[in-house]
Amino acid sequence: MRAIIGALIVFNMVIMAPPVRGESGRELWLRAGGADPVHVVAAGDSAAIELARGELRRGWRGKAGATVTLALGAGAEVRGDGYRLTASGVTANTDLGLLYGVYDLLRRQRTGRPAGEGVSNPAYERRILNHWDNLDGSVERGYGGRSIFWRGGGAALAVTERDRELWAEYGRANASIGINGTVINNVNAAPEVLSDACLGRVQAIADVLRPYGIRVYLSVKFSSPAQLGKLPTSDPLDERVVAWWRERVAEVYRRIPDFGGLLVKANSEGQPGPQDFGRTHAEGANMLADALAPHGGIVMWRAFVYNPGDRDRARQAYAEFMPLDGRFRPNVIVQVKNGPVDFQPREPFNPLFGAMKKTAVMPELQITQEYLGHSIHLVFLGPMWEEFLRSDTYGAGPGSTVARATDGSLFGQEHSAIAGVANIGLDHNWCGHHFAQANWYAFGRLAWDHTLGSREIADEWLRLTFAPPGGNRAKRAQWEDEFLGPVRGMMLRSWEAAIDYMMPLGLHHIFAGVHHYGPGPWYAPEGMRPDWTPPYYHQADAGGIGFDRTRRGSDAVSQYAGPLAALFDDPETCPEMYLLWFHHLPWNHKMKSGRTLWDEIACRYQRGLDQVREFQKVWDRVEPYVDAERFAAVQSKLRRHCRDAQIWKDACLLYFQQFSRMPIPYELERPVQDLEELMKIELPWLHHN
Amino acid sequence: MRAIIGALIVFNMVIMAPPVRGESGRELWLRAGGADPVHVVAAGDSAAIELARGELRRGWRGKAGATVTLALGAGAEVRGDGYRLTASGVTANTDLGLLYGVYDLLRRQRTGRPAGEGVSNPAYERRILNHWDNLDGSVERGYGGRSIFWRGGGAALAVTERDRELWAEYGRANASIGINGTVINNVNAAPEVLSDACLGRVQAIADVLRPYGIRVYLSVKFSSPAQLGKLPTSDPLDERVVAWWRERVAEVYRRIPDFGGLLVKANSEGQPGPQDFGRTHAEGANMLADALAPHGGIVMWRAFVYNPGDRDRARQAYAEFMPLDGRFRPNVIVQVKNGPVDFQPREPFNPLFGAMKKTAVMPELQITQEYLGHSIHLVFLGPMWEEFLRSDTYGAGPGSTVARATDGSLFGQEHSAIAGVANIGLDHNWCGHHFAQANWYAFGRLAWDHTLGSREIADEWLRLTFAPPGGNRAKRAQWEDEFLGPVRGMMLRSWEAAIDYMMPLGLHHIFAGVHHYGPGPWYAPEGMRPDWTPPYYHQADAGGIGFDRTRRGSDAVSQYAGPLAALFDDPETCPEMYLLWFHHLPWNHKMKSGRTLWDEIACRYQRGLDQVREFQKVWDRVEPYVDAERFAAVQSKLRRHCRDAQIWKDACLLYFQQFSRMPIPYELERPVQDLEELMKIELPWLHHN
Repeated sequence: MRAIIGALIVFNMVIMAPPVRGESGRELWLRAGGADPVHVVAAGDSAAIELARGELRRGWRGKAGATVTLALGAGAEVRGDGYRLTASGVTANTDLGLLYGVYDLLRRQRTGRPAGEGVSNPAYERRILNHWDNLDGSVERGYGGRSIFWRGGGAALAVTERDRELWAEYGRANASIGINGTVINNVNAAPEVLSDACLGRVQAIADVLRPYGIRVYLSVKFSSPAQLGKLPTSDPLDERVVAWWRERVAEVYRRIPDFGGLLVKANSEGQPGPQDFGRTHAEGANMLADALAPHGGIVMWRAFVYNPGDRDRARQAYAEFMPLDGRFRPNVIVQVKNGPVDFQPREPFNPLFGAMKKTAVMPELQITQEYLGHSIHLVFLGPMWEEFLRSDTYGAGPGSTVARATDGSLFGQEHSAIAGVANIGLDHNWCGHHFAQANWYAFGRLAWDHTLGSREIADEWLRLTFAPPGGNRAKRAQWEDEFLGPVRGMMLRSWEAAIDYMMPLGLHHIFAGVHHYGPGPWYAPEGMRPDWTPPYYHQADAGGIGFDRTRRGSDAVSQYAGPLAALFDDPETCPEMYLLWFHHLPWNHKMKSGRTLWDEIACRYQRGLDQVREFQKVWDRVEPYVDAERFAAVQSKLRRHCRDAQIWKDACLLYFQQFSRMPIPYELERPVQDLEELMKIELPWLHHN
Repeated sequence: MRAIIGALIVFNMVIMAPPVRGESGRELWLRAGGADPVHVVAAGDSAAIELARGELRRGWRGKAGATVTLALGAGAEVRGDGYRLTASGVTANTDLGLLYGVYDLLRRQRTGRPAGEGVSNPAYERRILNHWDNLDGSVERGYGGRSIFWRGGGAALAVTERDRELWAEYGRANASIGINGTVINNVNAAPEVLSDACLGRVQAIADVLRPYGIRVYLSVKFSSPAQLGKLPTSDPLDERVVAWWRERVAEVYRRIPDFGGLLVKANSEGQPGPQDFGRTHAEGANMLADALAPHGGIVMWRAFVYNPGDRDRARQAYAEFMPLDGRFRPNVIVQVKNGPVDFQPREPFNPLFGAMKKTAVMPELQITQEYLGHSIHLVFLGPMWEEFLRSDTYGAGPGSTVARATDGSLFGQEHSAIAGVANIGLDHNWCGHHFAQANWYAFGRLAWDHTLGSREIADEWLRLTFAPPGGNRAKRAQWEDEFLGPVRGMMLRSWEAAIDYMMPLGLHHIFAGVHHYGPGPWYAPEGMRPDWTPPYYHQADAGGIGFDRTRRGSDAVSQYAGPLAALFDDPETCPEMYLLWFHHLPWNHKMKSGRTLWDEIACRYQRGLDQVREFQKVWDRVEPYVDAERFAAVQSKLRRHCRDAQIWKDACLLYFQQFSRMPIPYELERPVQDLEELMKIELPWLHHN
């Protein structure tokens, strides 16, 4: 890979004049260069203020020699770590607020937006990355390299200077987009994370991240009292268990006074939990919450539960948690994945949003592209999260968007939070794919302000990440016309393209087993639990395709508020993007386009592939505007993206054609592989440089 | 393979109603069924006449109960094994002529052409298949399975009943298209073919083929006297050597009185020859000719010679053989490949054609698709051979086509012949690809009548091979509109498509090493002789691409007759299809299209790929008109064809782009692989079911 990039650099630089400086992507959206002199007047010298001062000096692009004032005391309009931009600088009620304000100021300068005056408050109190990092240094669903926290694979290894530098870089990047929390180990947690040896490393991480306003959280295994503490039980109502957790939590806070809290995956996919002892999720969560409360910590309790026995996995989180609404402590937040199944390319929102009114509920988004092409496909997730956050739950009447149902504004819960499963690793560019950085960025920006549009976020990110330094107005206008416009368009279309070539019209979970990269609608090994196989989800047969979740089927529709339940229940009113999520329909079902369902599916797959080909053209055309290193890396990824989109199309169409028994519309490109060959393909999906 | 075909059969039969009877392709263009009663009146009862009688009874579709007369004595207008169709049947001067006439009659009935009256004479006296079959049963450049002659790999193995049936099937198929000779072993010959043990099998083959009018020939190794005969030398002027050959030839004729003669590859690609003893090709060939003359046999002496020392391989056959013109015995025919290099996707004709006036010269065509996609790509070679045979050599002024320069009509040589390297093996459908049968068919038809057009041949072959039996006029018209027209169009465009996605504009020999299937413009292992590596042929560098064979270059142009030499020498008048064959031109050379050479190359590769995609659509649309077995087999081949055409395009464009340093025109589809990956691909090119 390195060799070919090297070759292409030489080659491109010869074609294109003048050559653009090679960039590695290491600096993310915080690229150095082009700072003007500035004076900073600040009230104090806390770590956050020192960072703010440094950022201004490093990145000021306002009036040369201007004076920027950072002052506390911004008034009641500014909440939490919010801030106010003024003509003279930033005011806030916390030092961290000042730092956030400075990042905003500098971002405005770099993106050419007016400096502006006014207040910006965070939408969510806690804006948290979830790292699915294992203590051995591997990362579950990580496509950007191995763990930045558990380098070397030894949780108890001595912390090195390089570790601290890396964590500081990470802290700065997160602070610049407002992220203020990080869960540094996998939700499939090892009990050892609470051992003294391991807590030493956690403490070191927290110490490095503290100046950036980032609190550390840990995932814990519910059976830790037995496994680590050698107790005979982990029953949450057992006093020895309660005492054990209290002691461990106290030890954590002794080391890390501002520790954020615990994240728990319990009674889910084989993980232990309170139900193992006949207790409810609420009893389990509350026990931990009581241990954390004296220290100001919270419990994030995941609602991602499902059993093979139920006839519809999509119904289960709701069925399990709704009866517990009102029975959780105030410092428990139920963490709910955006959709009812599992981070699929497109899902309707989980019906728990807007329904749990007496419990804090936090969205869990997946930044890492487990089901969206890993770090191989260029898929910008902004539009997906925008669609999700703006979905109306009708939980308190029209306008009860997911965003409002979770940010505390609708139901007034004490805490609010949002989590994103991180896509960060030891890769030089952090995320494997240069454009995957945009998803990290978008998560942070939306966690701060969920009213932002994905177009605005893409625009910002592109300017910060790719704009050449300096240049006159005409040059900038040319860059906007010839680079920014087309590439932003590509980003904004990329999610819909992926849906089209993977799972259009509400199809879901038809991935090959285990790796979730390539297609596997046929995947159903003997003896596997059905809800882990694609046929469970697509239900294709001679009679049609799709999962019947109507009142006549699994009745999952009834978990939604009345207007939505009715809308989803009727194939005539159900949005086509969710059609096969809620309905099993005959192959010749007439679509809004006038096509049959079968033809429509085929057209969508083709459209998805065509879009990726178009993205390749967009990217190749902007070669003069991109440094050779990043150009070649993205070009190479897009090539693979295109090949694999074609495999998706061919595999799904030929597989489903066995049931539809209808020809692929003849105006469409024909498959280029036989189904039997496609079923044997093992796509090289791993990405660890 | 079998499993998937099985699956698809079931599947297709369900889609399409009514199902078309499954066919294996075993019957070639001689499909049984639908015969009407007929009376045959024939003058004799020779084997050929008995066969003719049987064919009429098996296949008559004329007036039911009609009487067909087969009579000898057709007059001087009918030459050799020619014939005359009359209102009452066939007249000819030989029994074989009657058989050929019967095949013509039946073909006309099956293809719906008028029975017609008139004379048909063979263009060439000898119409010969060259089998590159080794005595161990393998076939060099064979993509239709192992050898039908050396089954079991033992030349001396006992001949079985299954062998005889197979050879008879083969004989009948060839007779039906006028082929009258077969060289049953590889030109890279083993000395053992002349051993008594081996000659026993040769005799058995000749005995089976005799009734079909097919004479057997053998390839011999020039060093056989030393290797097999244990003589101290194989010097053609050594009397012991002369005597050895005389004895062996006599032994062959003792067993096979109508034996055809010997084919020799001498001093070529490491094969021994007269030059090893300081003798000329003429001295070597004449020695063998003298041994054969008393028995009526001929020598076919290949002109395919080239040495790594010369700066242009394309010049060498001419340089070596022209000085020998007039020095060969009358029963020597110099066998010359159509082009000056080696069966490339497209070559100008070899300049020996039309230039050697005092020597019989026979064209060697390659039916097996060594350089045209093996039995994987659908490439109909009719248009290639039509272009070649109609090329004007100007050898005796305008109108001196290759056809006329070789059929005896222009220079009056005693013998005339044409050879085709066979694509036949033990595959159930004989040729691996159902459409490869069309190339066997086309060779036979053109060898009989080189004025036939490839459109007419394709039309005939499709009607014979795919037309459903029976049906009324409306049904037949529908079949012609919906199957025949589109599929014939596909066949006629397929060769140009292959040129486009492999080697447009006169490029040649840029194949991967050894297997000659995939692209390998970069292929040049350390120490390999340069004229076996693609860079020798494409000559790509920063200054341009193409082999300079002008007067300023290797001067190969001067081997052509005056008008052609001038035409080819000037890039403005050189046909673009040969442009880079004769010229090294800068990347920005302006083409007739107005595009630069680089852009034109890129557009051709794209056009080639697009054509293959179009062929897939054509084929999928005709599904209702094809039996499920052949439909699925061809569909599967076309899928692979398309994938590999894309690999060709990407590999060649990305490789050449390193030199052109120009972008691929942005309106074209982008490559889907990196060059470095493409250079590592090992295409699974082998085809032995």
